[in-house]
Amino acid sequence: MALPFTIQAQAGSARQACIHTAHGPVGTPAFMPVGTSGTVKAVSQDILEELGAQIILGNTYHLYLRPGHELVRKLGGLHKFMSWERALLTDSGGFQVFSLSELRKVKEEGVSFRSHLDGTSHLFTPERSMEIQIALGADIVMAFDECTEHPAERERARESMEMTLRWAKRSKDYFEAHKHEVPWGDWGIGTSEHRDIGSSEELDNPACSAENSGNLPTTPALFGIVQGGMYADLRRESAERTVELDFPGYAIGGLSVGESREKTMEMIAAVLEILPKDKPRYVMGVGYPEEIVQYAAMGVDMMDCVLPTRAARHGLLFTSEGRINIKNARYAQDQGPADPKCSCRVCARYTRAYLRHLFVSAEPLAGVLNTVHNLAFYLDTMRSVRHAITLGDLSGILSGGVSLT
Amino acid sequence: MALPFTIQAQAGSARQACIHTAHGPVGTPAFMPVGTSGTVKAVSQDILEELGAQIILGNTYHLYLRPGHELVRKLGGLHKFMSWERALLTDSGGFQVFSLSELRKVKEEGVSFRSHLDGTSHLFTPERSMEIQIALGADIVMAFDECTEHPAERERARESMEMTLRWAKRSKDYFEAHKHEVPWGDWGIGTSEHRDIGSSEELDNPACSAENSGNLPTTPALFGIVQGGMYADLRRESAERTVELDFPGYAIGGLSVGESREKTMEMIAAVLEILPKDKPRYVMGVGYPEEIVQYAAMGVDMMDCVLPTRAARHGLLFTSEGRINIKNARYAQDQGPADPKCSCRVCARYTRAYLRHLFVSAEPLAGVLNTVHNLAFYLDTMRSVRHAITLGDLSGILSGGVSLT
Repeated sequence: MALPFTIQAQAGSARQACIHTAHGPVGTPAFMPVGTSGTVKAVSQDILEELGAQIILGNTYHLYLRPGHELVRKLGGLHKFMSWERALLTDSGGFQVFSLSELRKVKEEGVSFRSHLDGTSHLFTPERSMEIQIALGADIVMAFDECTEHPAERERARESMEMTLRWAKRSKDYFEAHKHEVPWGDWGIGTSEHRDIGSSEELDNPACSAENSGNLPTTPALFGIVQGGMYADLRRESAERTVELDFPGYAIGGLSVGESREKTMEMIAAVLEILPKDKPRYVMGVGYPEEIVQYAAMGVDMMDCVLPTRAARHGLLFTSEGRINIKNARYAQDQGPADPKCSCRVCARYTRAYLRHLFVSAEPLAGVLNTVHNLAFYLDTMRSVRHAITLGDLSGILSGGVSLT
Repeated sequence: MALPFTIQAQAGSARQACIHTAHGPVGTPAFMPVGTSGTVKAVSQDILEELGAQIILGNTYHLYLRPGHELVRKLGGLHKFMSWERALLTDSGGFQVFSLSELRKVKEEGVSFRSHLDGTSHLFTPERSMEIQIALGADIVMAFDECTEHPAERERARESMEMTLRWAKRSKDYFEAHKHEVPWGDWGIGTSEHRDIGSSEELDNPACSAENSGNLPTTPALFGIVQGGMYADLRRESAERTVELDFPGYAIGGLSVGESREKTMEMIAAVLEILPKDKPRYVMGVGYPEEIVQYAAMGVDMMDCVLPTRAARHGLLFTSEGRINIKNARYAQDQGPADPKCSCRVCARYTRAYLRHLFVSAEPLAGVLNTVHNLAFYLDTMRSVRHAITLGDLSGILSGGVSLT
């Protein structure tokens, strides 16, 4: 099987499951920290392990430009390059071409663009995206899609959706023909030297472990992406036709692009009705803590977002008492931890007064500590969600807002 | 005793000793990482503990401006503020007033200056420096001195030296009258919860531990500072007259300010002849790995420098194979560790290729990992020096250049 996915418990529409990758198990619902350029900004890999992260993202656009996918392939793939033995997912590069690059031009063939780093010209096609992602060697790779801009007229959203469907087919064709070229070798496969250090995952999720994985994949798995703008019927059609292409998992893209949160939920709900229940379902680029809990309750299995890491570098901390801006003068003499209910290494040792001092002094340690705490909050939140699903009741977490631990 | 100092072994002029502070033992010769604003830039306190740092520096000028010494005092002192239970040393603020502030004016009373942060006017006097340092509450505080500029005519160097001697007397008078006002409370005194985590100090330095400390100090200790420019006779006179003032330790300031390395050594040698052998001797602001080994061999007990941390943030790594600039293209595919002889957590996990990628991508993790390695190299170097002294022979380390581990 391309990507074993075992559902272990359900509570309403929510499911607690396990994705068995070649690089270890991923308990879901999962929040995936974003490691843009082969690093979750400011955090070392051992800390990510300690926080219990079982899967992180890499960004194809960034890694393609620097250090280059051929270099990464030559050095054994992204897992080995960044010394990360757990699961990895790469995006298709499409979203960042749309948001970061200059002089972007979309054609049937693909997207031509200029690098935001040096202005050089490049072309991403579905085939090229697959080639790059296979060279990087993530466990889960994403079909090359067009992230429809917002707002978009209905006809424009339909055209874009149709393009994404054609690109999905081309992505799959290339991927199936080349997926065995992944540069994994033996590195990180079936080992647990780094994987289990400090992870408390086993404690609350005993059935999702390497021992229970049966036959592990020997290649990456390709996920299709549903588009369709903010039109529920287009979203449903996109989902149906993407499912017809038959992927081992499905993502919902093009959300959290400026629409209301109600609209986001409406689109997710429409698509979840169509997507098969026996495969992982991934909403890309979301969200705030209360959002990811809500989407998990609706039956979403995977989510990723730069919010906890990017906000941390701007001094915004997520806590059980709500969001706090650590640079606020009110914290100058606050001897309490960032979050009194958090047991992360930052909250266990440092005060808000110290974190504020680091931030207003522009000390590099500010970004490190703030990021570690925010990731701990997000990962603990998802751990609580998984636990609640195994108990069969998410109502406590949903009513508790962000007070999740 | 103001600051118990027990010499445990000697090899030529070098000594292996132990300084017993209220916040734990410091095995010497010691290199002290610089924690400018209450943080060793980019490195968390638990990593410093793991690296075996037993004492770090704080900069009075920076902490006075931000977050302010009164705030630090109110929050229990710098140890508690930054969650550092081991020993701390603060400088007098003099050197940074000279090097960083604007519109500086030196008078007999002290130095008036404008903050480099906001242009506000301030006055540092010997008394004010003591007041600030006692509020910060380091274990070792430094007399307020004038760091003579280089080059300086003989007469100017003498005048400056005389001023430093008068200021040393005023520093001591104020310090003795107020040292009991230190805001230590019970925090970090006699505890070892954080202190011993991951430190390998006990392994190579068994006699320098909290158990062997006898009566621990209940106040900070004030060190005098020898000046005198680049004139050996002025240095000797400064040393003699500073010793007459009777401090529990002595520093040699005003070196590494642009003079040749031979001149630095000449000045250190001249002063070491005068300073009492039964008290710690500290050379401020040095140096490269081969320098600190050389000075330790001459009988210096303590050194500090921003070099390993600042160089790290610029991509310069110190290794047993010499210095390497990690951004060099030759490391793009280098799968070896930063230093094949180093066992730090960076060298144990990451390749030069990855470190280069992080650095050229301006990733915050670059500064973190480079700093951890450089500090490991410096601290391991001093650990090797201490071990060699206990074996009675430094010749191997001195002839080995930087290949110290």
